[in-house]
Amino acid sequence: MICFFNGQFHSLSNIKVSPFDRGFLFADGVYESIRTYNGKLFRYEDHLDRLKRSLKETKIDYKKVDLLEKIICELIKKNNIEREALVYLQITRGSAKKRTHHFPVEEISPTVFISAQEFKKNTQAQERGVKVILQEDIRWLRCDIKSTSLLPVVLANQKAKEENAAEAILVRDGLITEGTHTNFFAVKDETVYTAPKSRLILEGITRKIVLEFCDKFKIDFREEFINKDELKNYNEFFITSTTKEITPIIEIDFWKINQGEPGKITRSLQAVFNKVAEDY
Amino acid sequence: MICFFNGQFHSLSNIKVSPFDRGFLFADGVYESIRTYNGKLFRYEDHLDRLKRSLKETKIDYKKVDLLEKIICELIKKNNIEREALVYLQITRGSAKKRTHHFPVEEISPTVFISAQEFKKNTQAQERGVKVILQEDIRWLRCDIKSTSLLPVVLANQKAKEENAAEAILVRDGLITEGTHTNFFAVKDETVYTAPKSRLILEGITRKIVLEFCDKFKIDFREEFINKDELKNYNEFFITSTTKEITPIIEIDFWKINQGEPGKITRSLQAVFNKVAEDY
Repeated sequence: MICFFNGQFHSLSNIKVSPFDRGFLFADGVYESIRTYNGKLFRYEDHLDRLKRSLKETKIDYKKVDLLEKIICELIKKNNIEREALVYLQITRGSAKKRTHHFPVEEISPTVFISAQEFKKNTQAQERGVKVILQEDIRWLRCDIKSTSLLPVVLANQKAKEENAAEAILVRDGLITEGTHTNFFAVKDETVYTAPKSRLILEGITRKIVLEFCDKFKIDFREEFINKDELKNYNEFFITSTTKEITPIIEIDFWKINQGEPGKITRSLQAVFNKVAEDY
Repeated sequence: MICFFNGQFHSLSNIKVSPFDRGFLFADGVYESIRTYNGKLFRYEDHLDRLKRSLKETKIDYKKVDLLEKIICELIKKNNIEREALVYLQITRGSAKKRTHHFPVEEISPTVFISAQEFKKNTQAQERGVKVILQEDIRWLRCDIKSTSLLPVVLANQKAKEENAAEAILVRDGLITEGTHTNFFAVKDETVYTAPKSRLILEGITRKIVLEFCDKFKIDFREEFINKDELKNYNEFFITSTTKEITPIIEIDFWKINQGEPGKITRSLQAVFNKVAEDY
């Protein structure tokens, strides 16, 4: 696999991240996952805006953000990806001589790593729906920053894996925030609910798209936190993400929803999404 | 500088952390900082116990933990460190072929990185005392694990740096937890207070030593959270850590404490600490 690292294309095995990279020492970095449809980067502007915001909030001073699109496209070509690509992009504050909690005193350049791999979507999960579990949300209070400080997410997602679930849905003070790497939606009385934009969730691009669909197709929606004790008042659930698109939830912590059948509104949103992706 | 990396000693510039290392992608790792006094690793057993606990809590299956002491001692020698050494040790879950939030499905070996550098303590800070600022504690809810998921700590410590303070003291829901890389102590009515062991603080080795001193020298102490609004009821403050030892606080957020003079109990604890270190 060819990757991009600090200004050059290299084969993965030749890339040398320093152990003094602040991404390695402190999770002092941000990232994005971007995919293509029909070979074109999907909603790149949204990803770029979010990346810029993450960099700003973490005060990582990376000036060449506008050159990334060209690099990504070249990287996809170099890897001979014929169908769809999944691009992973990480920018850390860089590597300093000394380990200090505060930013390095000397001027350093951010570390940029980009990979591009063939992407095959999980059609079965999207057709049949998936099981999820609920887990306590113990993450930091700036989940709106797409940072690599992801250990809590790793541990929660692993718990899901161990219980044969596709995702862990996180609950903070009784309220559902989001999944470990997805946004969470529920439907009640033909109205779509999802947690509001705040420091407690990451604003997913697919979340944004779903709300655009709701707007366009006159489906009522509310950005409100869902209380975990009131889940049974809702009759459809789904998660969204760049890789999972719109994936129905058919089981939450051993509660089988609607006899394991994905809901109608979920299905119609999926259909619209698939059409948009197809025509992209 | 010679470092230890995955079973071998290398010069730092030859070490190649993979960008797919989970330490780099997810902060999926733990660490320790250990120092020497008189060339001997200080309270190594305590550091080792804490490391084992961090590994256990994160389910990183590293089996060679008992070989580390020998490696560390060899590393110090190889670097020709004549006086005191500061050792940094990081273990991540390892590098997998695929980026998955859950643990890799294939068996992987943890990544081990150790550095040893000459350490010179900040005598001036310990003599004169330091300024600290208060910052909201936005970290995750497992601060008892010494993990590299440190971005919140980086941002808070940077804020302190920008305000010419030595440390940011973190406040969660109005209660003081600890510093970004220190434990926080206050004294009132000849009694020493510090936050109780819980998931909200890291149990520092120097914190433990201070409480041992209190026990031995019949100084009353209480492991209780201090309310930030009641700080002015206390008359001495200090922070502790492996590198900062016992450092007096003489200013908190523009409040100059006791005309900028370190307190008596702080001074006596420092004296005991210095004696122990001297005789180590």
